[in-house]
Amino acid sequence: MTEFEIIDSMFTYNLSGNSDVVCGIGDDAAIVKAGSKSYAVSTDTLVEKVHFNENIKPYRLGSRAVRVAISDLAAMGAAPKFALLAITIPEANKKWLTEFSAGLKSALSLYKCDLIGGDTTKGPLTITLQVIGEVYANKLLRDGAKVGDRVMVTGELGGARAALDFLDDDSNERTDGETIFLERYYYPNPRIEFGKAISSFAHAAIDISDGLIADLSHIAKKSHVKIKVFADCVPVLPTMYEYFPAHVARDYALTGGDDYELAFTVPKENVPRILEIAKNLNISVTDVGLIENGRDVECYESGNGQLMNLRDEGGFDHFKKIN
Amino acid sequence: MTEFEIIDSMFTYNLSGNSDVVCGIGDDAAIVKAGSKSYAVSTDTLVEKVHFNENIKPYRLGSRAVRVAISDLAAMGAAPKFALLAITIPEANKKWLTEFSAGLKSALSLYKCDLIGGDTTKGPLTITLQVIGEVYANKLLRDGAKVGDRVMVTGELGGARAALDFLDDDSNERTDGETIFLERYYYPNPRIEFGKAISSFAHAAIDISDGLIADLSHIAKKSHVKIKVFADCVPVLPTMYEYFPAHVARDYALTGGDDYELAFTVPKENVPRILEIAKNLNISVTDVGLIENGRDVECYESGNGQLMNLRDEGGFDHFKKIN
Repeated sequence: MTEFEIIDSMFTYNLSGNSDVVCGIGDDAAIVKAGSKSYAVSTDTLVEKVHFNENIKPYRLGSRAVRVAISDLAAMGAAPKFALLAITIPEANKKWLTEFSAGLKSALSLYKCDLIGGDTTKGPLTITLQVIGEVYANKLLRDGAKVGDRVMVTGELGGARAALDFLDDDSNERTDGETIFLERYYYPNPRIEFGKAISSFAHAAIDISDGLIADLSHIAKKSHVKIKVFADCVPVLPTMYEYFPAHVARDYALTGGDDYELAFTVPKENVPRILEIAKNLNISVTDVGLIENGRDVECYESGNGQLMNLRDEGGFDHFKKIN
Repeated sequence: MTEFEIIDSMFTYNLSGNSDVVCGIGDDAAIVKAGSKSYAVSTDTLVEKVHFNENIKPYRLGSRAVRVAISDLAAMGAAPKFALLAITIPEANKKWLTEFSAGLKSALSLYKCDLIGGDTTKGPLTITLQVIGEVYANKLLRDGAKVGDRVMVTGELGGARAALDFLDDDSNERTDGETIFLERYYYPNPRIEFGKAISSFAHAAIDISDGLIADLSHIAKKSHVKIKVFADCVPVLPTMYEYFPAHVARDYALTGGDDYELAFTVPKENVPRILEIAKNLNISVTDVGLIENGRDVECYESGNGQLMNLRDEGGFDHFKKIN
C-alpha cells in the first residue's frame, strides 16, 4: 500500500458537503473559501531517521521544515501568511531548540510568514509544519492539465538527490560541488513569487518533492492525461556531471526528490508569458515535455526516441513505500 | 524548562507585523482575520506512550484526537470548519488505519468539521490534528479576565483523570463506573455550542486539558489577576466517590487533566445569561471562584477557608514537564 493509496482509501471523505472547500485532499494543499478570500492550507511532517538523519544541524532542520512546507503553497499559486509548528522532541535541549528556532525564524521571515501557534510535545523527534497562504489570483491544481499543454519545470534538478550521497559523510571539509548539493537539500527555494505569477497562465502545477517523474504522474492521474517527458530536455544541475556519470546525473534529475522546484503545464500560446515571468524573477524554466490523450508518464530518450523504463531502475522507490 | 517556557522563549516571534494576526502564540488557538471573517487555528499532537498507551483501540484514538483538537476551538468561542491530519505510522496496517479513520470520521462528522488535507509519514506513531474554526461572535481569550469576575466551569470534573487508573487494565469486563471514566477519557465532548454562545458574555476562557488549576493559572498569568478557587465548589463527577476516597476524587477534579470542559470568567451581572445558555444546551455550569487583584491561582478549602497547597501534592506534575 503506497502513501497515496492510504490517503485515498482511508482519509478521503467529505462530510458536510461544505461549499467552502474548493479543493480537498489530494493536491499539494487544500483550498478553502473564507468570505471573499481563498486560502491554501497544507501540513508537512518531517520524521527523524526517515526525512532527515540524526546529526542534522538544528538550524538547517528548522529552515528546511519551513521551506518544504511552504513549497506546497507555491505549487497552488498561493503566498504564505501563517504557520503553526507541532514539534515533538525527546528532551528540552535549550541549545538545540535555540538553533532550530533560529533556522525556522530565518526561513519564515524570508517568506513573510508569521508563526501563529503550535504544540510542543515529548517523544521521538518529529516536526509538523502547517502553513496557510492566500490565493490571490487563480489557484493551480493538479487536475488542470489539458491535452496540447507543454510541460515545464523551474530551476535545475537533481542536486538535492545528489546531496543524499554525501549526507552521511559528516566532514567539515566539503568540496565546492558537495556544498552546492547540500545547499540544495537543506535550503530549497520554494517558488512562491513564480507560482503566484503563473497562476493565471498555467493549467496545472505541482512541487517536486518526490521526483519529477513521480510528481508529474500525480498530474497525469488527476488530469486524466498522458504526460510525455523528453529526458534529454530535463535541466540537470551542471555540477552533478563532475561527480556522477552522465546517466546517473540525469536519473537523479528525473527521479530524485527534494528539489522543490515547480513542474507545471501550460497552453502553448502562454509559453512566452511564462518565459517573461521567469526572466523577470531571474528563474530558469525549461520545456521538458507535453500532454497527450492517455494516462501515466512516459519518459523518452530524446536522441533515439526510445521509451525509458524508469520504474525498473528504481526511480520510483520512495513512491512505492510510505514516507 | 516547562512546555510553556519553551514555547515562550523559543517560538514567540511575530515577524511581519502582520495586522491579520488577531491573537498569536500563547492561547488555546491563534485567531487570524481573513477579509471580513475571523478564524481560530490550532494544532494538537498526540504521541504514543506519552499521550496514549500502545494498546489503545484505534477507533478511540481517532475519535479522541479530533475531540481534543476541537476543544481548543471551543475555548475560543469558535465553531470547527476544517481539519488537517498529519499522521506518522510505523507501518501501513490496513485494519488499524480503517478503524482509526472510522473513529476520526465519526468525531469530525459529529462536530461538522471537514478533513481537507494531511500528510502520512512513516515513523513512531504520532498524530497531529490541526483544526480551523470560524469565530462568529466574539473571541474568547485567556487575557480577558477582570477583577470581580466569577470563575465558572462546565460539566463535572475528574473522570478522565480517574480513567488513567484503569487504562492499563485491559479488561473486557468493566464495572459501570470504570466505563463512565473511560468514556470521559476517550470521548470528551468539546463545548463548541456553549463556547460560541457565551463568547459575548464571558471575559476569558480556556479548555481544561492540563487540569482546572493548571489551566486557570494560564488565565491568571495572561490576564494579570489572581484567581481564587473554592475547592468544595468544584463539581466532582459523582461516580468517583464510589471508587476513590473523597479527597482523591476532589484532587482529581481540581488537578486532573483531559476533561476538556471549559473554565471561564464572567462579570457577575452576566451570570444569569450564562446559566440560561447552559440550561438551553443542557449543560451544567458551576461557580467555583472569583477574580481578584494579584497573581496566580489560590485554592481554598471552603469549610475552614484554608489555602490548599496543591503544588506539594503533585497536582501540577505534568505542568512541570514537557508533554
